[in-house]
Amino acid sequence: MKQIGILNGPNLNRLGKREPDIYGHATLDDLHAQLRKEATADGIELDCFQSNHEGELIDKLAAWADGGFVGAVINPGAFTHTSVALRDAIAGTGLRCVEVHISNIYRREEFRHKSLTAPVCEAVISGLGLHGYSAALAFLARE
Amino acid sequence: MKQIGILNGPNLNRLGKREPDIYGHATLDDLHAQLRKEATADGIELDCFQSNHEGELIDKLAAWADGGFVGAVINPGAFTHTSVALRDAIAGTGLRCVEVHISNIYRREEFRHKSLTAPVCEAVISGLGLHGYSAALAFLARE
Amino acid sequence: MKQIGILNGPNLNRLGKREPDIYGHATLDDLHAQLRKEATADGIELDCFQSNHEGELIDKLAAWADGGFVGAVINPGAFTHTSVALRDAIAGTGLRCVEVHISNIYRREEFRHKSLTAPVCEAVISGLGLHGYSAALAFLARE
Amino acid sequence: MKQIGILNGPNLNRLGKREPDIYGHATLDDLHAQLRKEATADGIELDCFQSNHEGELIDKLAAWADGGFVGAVINPGAFTHTSVALRDAIAGTGLRCVEVHISNIYRREEFRHKSLTAPVCEAVISGLGLHGYSAALAFLARE
Amino acid sequence: MKQIGILNGPNLNRLGKREPDIYGHATLDDLHAQLRKEATADGIELDCFQSNHEGELIDKLAAWADGGFVGAVINPGAFTHTSVALRDAIAGTGLRCVEVHISNIYRREEFRHKSLTAPVCEAVISGLGLHGYSAALAFLARE
Amino acid sequence: MKQIGILNGPNLNRLGKREPDIYGHATLDDLHAQLRKEATADGIELDCFQSNHEGELIDKLAAWADGGFVGAVINPGAFTHTSVALRDAIAGTGLRCVEVHISNIYRREEFRHKSLTAPVCEAVISGLGLHGYSAALAFLARE
Amino acid sequence: MKQIGILNGPNLNRLGKREPDIYGHATLDDLHAQLRKEATADGIELDCFQSNHEGELIDKLAAWADGGFVGAVINPGAFTHTSVALRDAIAGTGLRCVEVHISNIYRREEFRHKSLTAPVCEAVISGLGLHGYSAALAFLARE
Amino acid sequence: MKQIGILNGPNLNRLGKREPDIYGHATLDDLHAQLRKEATADGIELDCFQSNHEGELIDKLAAWADGGFVGAVINPGAFTHTSVALRDAIAGTGLRCVEVHISNIYRREEFRHKSLTAPVCEAVISGLGLHGYSAALAFLARE
Amino acid sequence: MKQIGILNGPNLNRLGKREPDIYGHATLDDLHAQLRKEATADGIELDCFQSNHEGELIDKLAAWADGGFVGAVINPGAFTHTSVALRDAIAGTGLRCVEVHISNIYRREEFRHKSLTAPVCEAVISGLGLHGYSAALAFLARE
Amino acid sequence: MKQIGILNGPNLNRLGKREPDIYGHATLDDLHAQLRKEATADGIELDCFQSNHEGELIDKLAAWADGGFVGAVINPGAFTHTSVALRDAIAGTGLRCVEVHISNIYRREEFRHKSLTAPVCEAVISGLGLHGYSAALAFLARE
Amino acid sequence: MKQIGILNGPNLNRLGKREPDIYGHATLDDLHAQLRKEATADGIELDCFQSNHEGELIDKLAAWADGGFVGAVINPGAFTHTSVALRDAIAGTGLRCVEVHISNIYRREEFRHKSLTAPVCEAVISGLGLHGYSAALAFLARE
Amino acid sequence: MKQIGILNGPNLNRLGKREPDIYGHATLDDLHAQLRKEATADGIELDCFQSNHEGELIDKLAAWADGGFVGAVINPGAFTHTSVALRDAIAGTGLRCVEVHISNIYRREEFRHKSLTAPVCEAVISGLGLHGYSAALAFLARE
Repeated sequence: MKQIGILNGPNLNRLGKREPDIYGHATLDDLHAQLRKEATADGIELDCFQSNHEGELIDKLAAWADGGFVGAVINPGAFTHTSVALRDAIAGTGLRCVEVHISNIYRREEFRHKSLTAPVCEAVISGLGLHGYSAALAFLARE
Repeated sequence: MKQIGILNGPNLNRLGKREPDIYGHATLDDLHAQLRKEATADGIELDCFQSNHEGELIDKLAAWADGGFVGAVINPGAFTHTSVALRDAIAGTGLRCVEVHISNIYRREEFRHKSLTAPVCEAVISGLGLHGYSAALAFLARE
Repeated sequence: MKQIGILNGPNLNRLGKREPDIYGHATLDDLHAQLRKEATADGIELDCFQSNHEGELIDKLAAWADGGFVGAVINPGAFTHTSVALRDAIAGTGLRCVEVHISNIYRREEFRHKSLTAPVCEAVISGLGLHGYSAALAFLARE
Repeated sequence: MKQIGILNGPNLNRLGKREPDIYGHATLDDLHAQLRKEATADGIELDCFQSNHEGELIDKLAAWADGGFVGAVINPGAFTHTSVALRDAIAGTGLRCVEVHISNIYRREEFRHKSLTAPVCEAVISGLGLHGYSAALAFLARE
Repeated sequence: MKQIGILNGPNLNRLGKREPDIYGHATLDDLHAQLRKEATADGIELDCFQSNHEGELIDKLAAWADGGFVGAVINPGAFTHTSVALRDAIAGTGLRCVEVHISNIYRREEFRHKSLTAPVCEAVISGLGLHGYSAALAFLARE
Repeated sequence: MKQIGILNGPNLNRLGKREPDIYGHATLDDLHAQLRKEATADGIELDCFQSNHEGELIDKLAAWADGGFVGAVINPGAFTHTSVALRDAIAGTGLRCVEVHISNIYRREEFRHKSLTAPVCEAVISGLGLHGYSAALAFLARE
Repeated sequence: MKQIGILNGPNLNRLGKREPDIYGHATLDDLHAQLRKEATADGIELDCFQSNHEGELIDKLAAWADGGFVGAVINPGAFTHTSVALRDAIAGTGLRCVEVHISNIYRREEFRHKSLTAPVCEAVISGLGLHGYSAALAFLARE
Repeated sequence: MKQIGILNGPNLNRLGKREPDIYGHATLDDLHAQLRKEATADGIELDCFQSNHEGELIDKLAAWADGGFVGAVINPGAFTHTSVALRDAIAGTGLRCVEVHISNIYRREEFRHKSLTAPVCEAVISGLGLHGYSAALAFLARE
Repeated sequence: MKQIGILNGPNLNRLGKREPDIYGHATLDDLHAQLRKEATADGIELDCFQSNHEGELIDKLAAWADGGFVGAVINPGAFTHTSVALRDAIAGTGLRCVEVHISNIYRREEFRHKSLTAPVCEAVISGLGLHGYSAALAFLARE
Repeated sequence: MKQIGILNGPNLNRLGKREPDIYGHATLDDLHAQLRKEATADGIELDCFQSNHEGELIDKLAAWADGGFVGAVINPGAFTHTSVALRDAIAGTGLRCVEVHISNIYRREEFRHKSLTAPVCEAVISGLGLHGYSAALAFLARE
Repeated sequence: MKQIGILNGPNLNRLGKREPDIYGHATLDDLHAQLRKEATADGIELDCFQSNHEGELIDKLAAWADGGFVGAVINPGAFTHTSVALRDAIAGTGLRCVEVHISNIYRREEFRHKSLTAPVCEAVISGLGLHGYSAALAFLARE
Repeated sequence: MKQIGILNGPNLNRLGKREPDIYGHATLDDLHAQLRKEATADGIELDCFQSNHEGELIDKLAAWADGGFVGAVINPGAFTHTSVALRDAIAGTGLRCVEVHISNIYRREEFRHKSLTAPVCEAVISGLGLHGYSAALAFLARE
């Protein structure tokens, strides 16, 4: 059975609590439940993981690569703009990754327009809301 | 019946001819046919338009706005990085737009990392191949 | 009889429709009618032209120069910030031009603070609303 | 009776003496006399002030605001490009200001293209010669 | 009883050991003891926390926000200049924070003059030594 | 008796009048009265001075240094970002200075994030409101 | 018979009229006639085209590529410095292009020193006057 | 007995797995074994540590400093370019450090040419492969 | 009799008091006395002026120009790096000026390497100590 | 008889040996022989010179200027991007120079896109291979 | 017998005389003698060369490449930061080079942090003192 | 007898020939003769040297330092802006140097405003014409 990871970075554990007018009222658990439903329909096994710790995100990507996962949907949150280490982890593991941002990062501060991780990901989706995760999952599932 | 526009900018008329190893063998007509099929299934009427002329793209956006379209899927091609006029047309018409790029622009030259149009679009999809258009259409159709 | 051109660039055909709280409810036709009235009073013949096409604006400037016009009031819209070709057309034709912006461009995004065309124009008026066109016309008429 | 201020910054006391091929032969007194004539015709009371001292310009703006002036025509001269204090004075007093430059600042050195005061003024006129003061005054008188 | 957090970032566990001529001989425990004494006098309950792990600092801020704390005194140390994730945590939790630096960061290397966290804090105190923590605490306690 | 100066720069004479929602309703006189009360309690003699003139601020600092003052609380206002002369005056007199800003300058325009005077001051307090002056005074009084 | 295109961009239709002291008195027609004479001697068929419209230049390059042309001599004029779309057209069609500028662009304004199209051309000739076209044609004819 | 630390940062646990054509087939354990052999020959006791967690690397440096180590060979991996916290840890502990990079970082992306940690290290070795660790160890052992 | 001005800017009134190890123990009066002695020997009448007020320096330059002075030796102090108004005063009066700095400004902070006034002066002397004034005076006296 | 110089800078003595897939197999001697043949046909006397020493290149240009040469074809190699001294030599001697680069420098590293010598040359040819020397020679011979 | 070059650039002939507290008391001859001893032990023939002339360093590299040397240890001194010509010589000859700096260039002025030659060298050693040459030689000898 | 060097860099051998309207008609020999006369009067022995070769200038400085010279007047010409090697030579030899430029470098191209050598010289004189050498010599002679 095909395996895909869902990786969420810092502060995404507060989904539904944090600025709900921007991010909506669905929690991270709600999101994971929805994605698992979609994955099952496609015969995919999901592993969902969130951490505020850069090192744990890197460890998880390595574990997925070693476990034979075909790819990952990643929302690196603030690490998008600062973490060369996460970039190296994506590039070094060879996992096919799709980067997702809930809001359109181009509408936010200048420093959020630059992504360190995007050049080592296969695709980037920004501003589709939680639907972005589904679109990314569908893309990885299909190929 | 809900109307949505599909707008393709400069050089996208050469899809299928131009660097097929990057962009694939499907032509712009193939893409339009595929999108029309998906739109019909969702009860949407599509208007597909391509031009190498910045002025024609601006004229078309205005016509769609005046015609009551709910939104547009746009791939501004090279104008993404240079056209303030197109940006103003998107912002001024008030059309909901989703920006699509076939390849991942973050993997290309530095000057392609900056988008003038993205801040006035609702979302951006980059690197999902032709599938990006479908995902954008589905997003606009749904809302 | 002295001839003066009025040149409006991209998206200015939407005057009165586009963000009326910023630009007011007067349309481009209303503006042209008002300017023609003022010009007639000064014994000036006006030629009013708008286009979303950079090439057409350049063609028109050349035609005016060949036709013996004494000058032009130009609002290059978004091309103010991006068009070296328009700048070259102004400089190359030798027409005396006054650049006009309806709103104060210094209150808008950073990239609108830089004008490529201003250094080849005789003067710049920004933020006087539609009245800026009249002031520019009066200046050119007088000299 | 409506009151409007005319504020001229450093070195403008030398109008008519300084580089007359650029600035013409009219002196600051000539300019003030001409503006007073125009103001009287519109039922406006003018207060004309020039200083080479940044602090005196700030004091004057505050005095005008406290005195109920409706606005001011200001030519901050070199302070345009360097004085955050003057900018704060304009913004803090809430006076409606129109910034005027005799020559077209876009044709001069690079550092003169940037205006610190323009973003807190309502409009900017540059390159209309002394006529720019009249146009600015007419604009403030009318509204 | 009103609760306030004291958050110290990387390397601040070495206070008193690290460059004592700059930072003095008081240890982090000494500082915490002193602040607790001051807080008690004001009827405040303090929670003091230090970590070299960015993720743990983010976790703690979220816990304080969920626990109903009214604010926090934070010295993000080196993360001041690099951590968008910590910035997002402060902004996302909505905690009122005062940023404190023991030494005057403007006297140090250029890259320490820029603070990513300051724009989402209510105030910044830099260079008052350990006394800065007391001043920040007093400010939060009072309001 | 120990002497300390309170120095306020341009536009701070308008405290209480200027944007009261940001700066509050207390006037500069109210502030001075409050600080004098605090100083007296600590056995300190205060000299409070405000000017919109850069030269007068420099003169005052020199006078305080020559008069044996132990330090000064300074709010250079807009000169913070532009005045090398004030910086040199602080450094050259050798007075111990604490720089105070009423609002958090990091939340304002980019050009206000840079302070020319901070590197020659002992400490910087930004965003504590008028309380910042008291905190700075207490710090200087104590040492 | 080998086919080569001659492409001239904006304002080059004014050759001979525009600043003749820089560009000389020969017109575009004169240039085309001269190049056709040289081409015929080498058994080459030329297609000469000029437009002020970026879109038409792009269309023409695509037509030439589809028509089996071996290469093109291009003078993109002002588009040299601004048109990513033209750059993409050159790269996407795979035509061998030699970029020509009549004057030495390094002696002009700073913004003319950067060419967006040069990196996708085979060679660049700048400052040889109209002779540059002949040299470029000879180069393409020979290979 | 003299003690030296070997510190490896993020993703270096994947040595031998990650891009073996660049980094070779030796694993981190192989490297540690080899270095221990060399150290023993020189009468040195080694402590080898790797972590993907910035905080753990900082903790370890502090532990080594407190434990009386004479120095450390560090390969901060991606943290080289982003971690001010690690830089502060090196500087604050006073450990003599030699920075090592397996590949020549000057041959890689622009952002890898800048090292935040190098200015607080005693020396830097880049591009000698795994041999760089040995050279660094020998240097520290000898002095 | 030939007249020359000596102009000293902010903080130079503190010569001899301020950092004597850098600037020496001679006061401004000592300097003036020495220069007057040298001038008299050359049949020159000197006017020596110092102010911390930018406006007074500008006023003085205008007075000298109107009074027929042949030139001025100026040490603008900190205004060297910030005052466009002083630059305009020098250029506008047409006085021949030689800029003098007591210390070598290239050995000080980066922001002191840039001079706004130097491009409108005839020459610049930096680092010759007080002797620089004499050299500049001799140069102006001779020509 | 008209004299023209051929000047080749550093590393061009290795033509034919160095990266022959880029630069071809012809040596510098082959190039000189070919150019001499072409020159003779045009009644021109050539002086061909190559050096890796910047000073010798400058000496040679001065010698040619003193010897009455009409111009020079120069390939400054790497000095194109770094030598202000060579630039000054070209400008100071007044020789008419055409700059030639064998490969298209716009396709190479960013730092090779900037030429210090081009602004003082009459024309620049880049990417025509060895043929660029012939084209430059023909241009100088003709005028 | 394997041949390796030792190349030292400008001012390194003054080793032992120049700032001995930084560079030590050993002279260049001492260094060469030491390296020759080490080379002989490894069966390597060394050629040691120093010059203050960029052209002579380039000539020597070419001579070594033609003479079949396997590589070179180079300390380009100040040319590290300015010489594109030396970089081209290294790249063009194909010699395997290891760049050595006696002191840690990251601890010196900003402009010394950038190396033009490092990207074409195989490795870089900085800050190991004279021992850096030995380490580089050992590396080249071994491979 | 006190010895001082006079060092002139590239193209200064053409003094009197090169752009005489800027540099005057005096030759380098004239300058040297004049300086020798002045030196003799002060009991100084001069060594005058000019070269277009950076290496020879460095060699000469070293020779002077070894020969016990007390200082040097240097006009590095174009090397002022590009030669780190010359800077290192000045700093490394410990010679007291005064940098001289005949014309005012602040009135020339932007890239000439930056001096690499000035921070290691004691003083800089720019724009005093040939008289600058005399002033520098007098300064060194006196101290």
